[in-house]
Amino acid sequence: MSERADLVITNAGELLTLDDDEDGPATGAAMRNLGIVEGGAIAISDGRILAVGRSSVIEARYPAERTIDAEGHVVMPGIVDPHTHLVFPATREDEFEMRCLGKSYEEIAAAGGGIRNSARKMRAIGMKELHVAARRLRRSALLHGTTTVEIKSGYGLETEAEIRALEVARDIDDRGDVVRTFLGAHEVPDEYRKNREEYIRLVIEEMIPVVAERNLASFCDVFCEEAVFTIAESRRILEAGIAAGLGAKLHADELHPTGGAELAAELGAVSADHLIRVSSAGIAAMAEAGVVAVLLPGTSYFLGMKHFAPGRKMIDGGVPVALATDCNPGSSMTENMQFVMTTACLGYGFTAAEAITAATRNAAFAVGLGDEVGSLVRGKRADVLVLDVTNYRRLTYHHSVNHVRTVVHHGEVVT
Amino acid sequence: MSERADLVITNAGELLTLDDDEDGPATGAAMRNLGIVEGGAIAISDGRILAVGRSSVIEARYPAERTIDAEGHVVMPGIVDPHTHLVFPATREDEFEMRCLGKSYEEIAAAGGGIRNSARKMRAIGMKELHVAARRLRRSALLHGTTTVEIKSGYGLETEAEIRALEVARDIDDRGDVVRTFLGAHEVPDEYRKNREEYIRLVIEEMIPVVAERNLASFCDVFCEEAVFTIAESRRILEAGIAAGLGAKLHADELHPTGGAELAAELGAVSADHLIRVSSAGIAAMAEAGVVAVLLPGTSYFLGMKHFAPGRKMIDGGVPVALATDCNPGSSMTENMQFVMTTACLGYGFTAAEAITAATRNAAFAVGLGDEVGSLVRGKRADVLVLDVTNYRRLTYHHSVNHVRTVVHHGEVVT
Repeated sequence: MSERADLVITNAGELLTLDDDEDGPATGAAMRNLGIVEGGAIAISDGRILAVGRSSVIEARYPAERTIDAEGHVVMPGIVDPHTHLVFPATREDEFEMRCLGKSYEEIAAAGGGIRNSARKMRAIGMKELHVAARRLRRSALLHGTTTVEIKSGYGLETEAEIRALEVARDIDDRGDVVRTFLGAHEVPDEYRKNREEYIRLVIEEMIPVVAERNLASFCDVFCEEAVFTIAESRRILEAGIAAGLGAKLHADELHPTGGAELAAELGAVSADHLIRVSSAGIAAMAEAGVVAVLLPGTSYFLGMKHFAPGRKMIDGGVPVALATDCNPGSSMTENMQFVMTTACLGYGFTAAEAITAATRNAAFAVGLGDEVGSLVRGKRADVLVLDVTNYRRLTYHHSVNHVRTVVHHGEVVT
Repeated sequence: MSERADLVITNAGELLTLDDDEDGPATGAAMRNLGIVEGGAIAISDGRILAVGRSSVIEARYPAERTIDAEGHVVMPGIVDPHTHLVFPATREDEFEMRCLGKSYEEIAAAGGGIRNSARKMRAIGMKELHVAARRLRRSALLHGTTTVEIKSGYGLETEAEIRALEVARDIDDRGDVVRTFLGAHEVPDEYRKNREEYIRLVIEEMIPVVAERNLASFCDVFCEEAVFTIAESRRILEAGIAAGLGAKLHADELHPTGGAELAAELGAVSADHLIRVSSAGIAAMAEAGVVAVLLPGTSYFLGMKHFAPGRKMIDGGVPVALATDCNPGSSMTENMQFVMTTACLGYGFTAAEAITAATRNAAFAVGLGDEVGSLVRGKRADVLVLDVTNYRRLTYHHSVNHVRTVVHHGEVVT
């Protein structure tokens, strides 16, 4: 009995399915299980995965319009980048140079740089220019293997500019591969410095309703930090988002252990992100509630930090861990998830398998798409990468180059 | 009056000539001078640079067979990578994973891993397999903008295998873009562990003469470190190399301040490399003698080090500083100099301009080719890159992606 396929990718040296017959993100030792089929193949039809198995079986059973011979290389699910800010008005290489010459990110922010710098430019930039830059970066991410990407607003800090950012994120999305998050509470803008409560009111009473009503985002996020939005403020904003039908995410415990992880657990957030200073209690609460920890090692690298999030402790504590680029013009100017994975191995003590699980299956759950992408399982979206390495450990070991030979996106060969 | 050119690259937003009318590598504040021609162009003939100037002038004066429109992007000299070990028998991703899980590089080496692991495999591998892997890596480096690369032996640790490595480095070199360095004194091999003096004798009396006689290398190098080769041993080996006509290089002060920088200055070495623990006296001696410091920030990254070489102090102290990948299977598995430049900005506090000078003009002097490559000056080899960024600071800021759009190598368009 045979079934017609549009595309078969065959002769994978290692086919990483990321499938262990369990639902949900992988935790603990399961993060080291890549569900490898040696000599594997995958059949694709109508943009969906039809079957996964050994090459001889798949080839015999699924005659295909087109066949890609992986020639013994690694085949894996498309990468999911669950935390970016890649719609932004301008790069900030001047601030990068100031940091390299010794100024801290906080000093630059206090002098009017950082997020507020981007906010001023965001309000002045035209839709088209914003669109062109975002599409270009999203395309580059795709060519580096990122088939699904989350994009946050948060450089507008006023209703109209926040909406514009989310519209651009929607418009560069050809078919549901951009997950949008509303982050109006990214920073208190200049004009509300002396009246922060008024800005919080604007976020809750004006921005969230319009974002929800116009279906501009799936999630609501807050930069929770003593100097930005407090725990109490973050709770109010996220509760308003949840009431409006948005899922919750949280920038938590990045600079100080403020209890952000605990808040994320309490609210049933889909993820808590950053977590460089997360407490042991926060780790336990996230594990208990099943909140995905989205870790951003590329940001630690780009900020020249000596201290990394306790990634190993989180995996060992049962937290489902994901990785993301945090792609943004201030603290992480890269869209390359492969570099992020290597930096996770070095900074957190992850194995290659843990980094891959964190960048695919677990990252998919961090954006609410765990049933759709992140693993190679019958019925899921056919987002598949053929790499130029013959064993998966080389993906993280041989670093800062692009190991992606072929990207299949929705069943179509992109490159 | 016009002169025929084979190729003109025109409309550079910024043409980085790296030319300041001085001979020798740049030092101090001169490292921030990229000799930028805005709206610049370059004319090329017979693989050499014919002229550099403003686009309108160059186009009028040098009618060309072929024109590349840089469309406002940055154009710069081909990158020079002055320290690699990219002829090696096998990748070592297993050791990378052990390190990520907590074992130190020294522990892995003591257990028979590290350089001695590669040495055992080097002696067993066939010439062809070695050749294929090295050519592939060299090609990837070229596509990342590295037009000239230095390659060291040092995984053979016996005469025949050292020769084989240098022959492979020679054979993958189509036209004089691989500078070869003999590094027989990279480690004491297993069989000489109890008789190191005998191995040093072998290096001096057997290997150096045959390498020099067969013209297999331009330089002799030693891994000078208390646990590897002492200052006294390093001096004997380098003096033997110099007597045989080889220039001197030195792996110096990487793990401990042993006086390697001072030895390099004393011997008139072309470069001293690593220098993580260099002393103030060592810096002063290098500045005085004009020894190029070849810094390897990617190695610090890949070894998870919190401590970087005092690169800023070296520039401010008048040492000509260069950058290199150190590409090797143990401590730096990347061939991407762009990543190295970003890491130098973050780890050493370099500006983008300093990193670019260190990776082009100064790196050329670190391999004895300062008069041939490393800057865009009439008469030099036409190794030129067109980037995908419109200002040079973005090259180091937007990291871990390949910004090279076009590589011109010996006047020919490679990609």
